[in-house]
Amino acid sequence: MKIPRAITRLIDSFQSLPGVGPKTAQRLTFHLLHFPQEYLDNFSKSLLELKNKTKLCSICKNISENDECSVCDDTSRDLEIIIVVAHPLDTFALEKTGFKGLYHVLHGLIDPLNSVGPEELFISGLMDRLNGQTEIILATNSSMEGESTAMYIAKQVKEKQPEVRITRIARGLPVGGDIEYADDITLSRALEGRKDFQI
Amino acid sequence: MKIPRAITRLIDSFQSLPGVGPKTAQRLTFHLLHFPQEYLDNFSKSLLELKNKTKLCSICKNISENDECSVCDDTSRDLEIIIVVAHPLDTFALEKTGFKGLYHVLHGLIDPLNSVGPEELFISGLMDRLNGQTEIILATNSSMEGESTAMYIAKQVKEKQPEVRITRIARGLPVGGDIEYADDITLSRALEGRKDFQI
Repeated sequence: MKIPRAITRLIDSFQSLPGVGPKTAQRLTFHLLHFPQEYLDNFSKSLLELKNKTKLCSICKNISENDECSVCDDTSRDLEIIIVVAHPLDTFALEKTGFKGLYHVLHGLIDPLNSVGPEELFISGLMDRLNGQTEIILATNSSMEGESTAMYIAKQVKEKQPEVRITRIARGLPVGGDIEYADDITLSRALEGRKDFQI
Repeated sequence: MKIPRAITRLIDSFQSLPGVGPKTAQRLTFHLLHFPQEYLDNFSKSLLELKNKTKLCSICKNISENDECSVCDDTSRDLEIIIVVAHPLDTFALEKTGFKGLYHVLHGLIDPLNSVGPEELFISGLMDRLNGQTEIILATNSSMEGESTAMYIAKQVKEKQPEVRITRIARGLPVGGDIEYADDITLSRALEGRKDFQI
C-alpha cells in the first residue's frame, strides 16, 4: 500500500517534535483529516509566522514582537530588580507569581559536555545592563548546569558591581511534596534553607 | 507581560490537537523557535496540503492520492477477500501483517449516543462492492460500538449475498498479555476461541 505523500510528510513533521513518536504522529495526522480546512490554514500560518513575526527584545532577550518587549517597555515595573532565567518559558511561569521586576533571558545554560560556553549565552548583555540595580535574582534550574551557570554569573556580576545583592531562588520541598519520597539533596537543601516558623 | 501573538496563536493551534494540553502546547511552540525556518516552512506546507492533496478512494474509501487508491488499483491483490475497518489508520496496521486482500474503510462506527447511524458511515458503498467475494472479514474494534457495527454489517451482507463467508477477527489475550491482569470478558472470549494445540 502506498501512503499518500501529503500524509507521510505531515507524519514526518510531527515526529520531529519532542516527545512525539511514530504512533502519536500518525494519530495526530489522521485526526487532522477531520478538522476544518480553516483550522489547518490557521495552524499553517502560525507556523510560518512563528519566527518571522517575533524577535528577541534588545534589552532582556525575551521573545518579543518589537525591538523592546512589553516588560522592558513598561515604566511601572521595578527597574532595580533583574531576575535571570534560562528560557523564555520561564518568564511566563514567573510572571504568574506576580513578580514585578525585569527579566533577563540567557537562552540556555552553561553546559561544557554539549559545548555550550558562557559566550553562547546572553551573559554579556546582562553585564551591559548592570547599572545601579539593587538585586539580581538567579532563577536557573536546580540542575548541575543551572547551578554552575548561576555561580558563573554571580561571580561576574559581583566583579562588576560589588555592592549589588545577588540571590538564588530557594530550593526545598515543592508544595504538596512528600518528605518520604524527596531525594537526599532536595531534603538537605530544604533543611539548610529552613526559616523561623511564624506563629 | 504581553506574549507575542505569533506565539499564542501557535500555542492555541497545538492545544486543539488530541492529547495536547496547555503546558505541552507551550513547550512545543518554544521548542520550534530553535528549529530552522526550513522545517517550519515544510511543516506549514504539509498542513496546507493534507486535505487539498488527498481524497477518499472511490472504491474502498481509504485516504488516497488518486481516485482509486494503490490497493484497489493493484491487480496482484486477492479480490475475493474484503476486510472492513473503522478508520484509515487501521489499514496501515493490517498491511504490516502481510494481508493481501482488499480494504473497506467505514470512517467511524455506529454510535447512537453520539448520533452516528449506519447512514453516516460508508456501509452502502460496501454493499455496492459485493460481487462474488468469498470472504468478508469484520475488523472493527472489540468495543460496544465495534461489535454492534460488525453485527449490523454482517446482517446486511448476509441478506445481499447469503453464500459469502463472514468472519470476525479473533478476540483473546494479546501477545505478551498476562492472564492475571486480563479482564473477565477478554478471558472468556479467549476461552471460547481456543484452538487445538499443534504438536
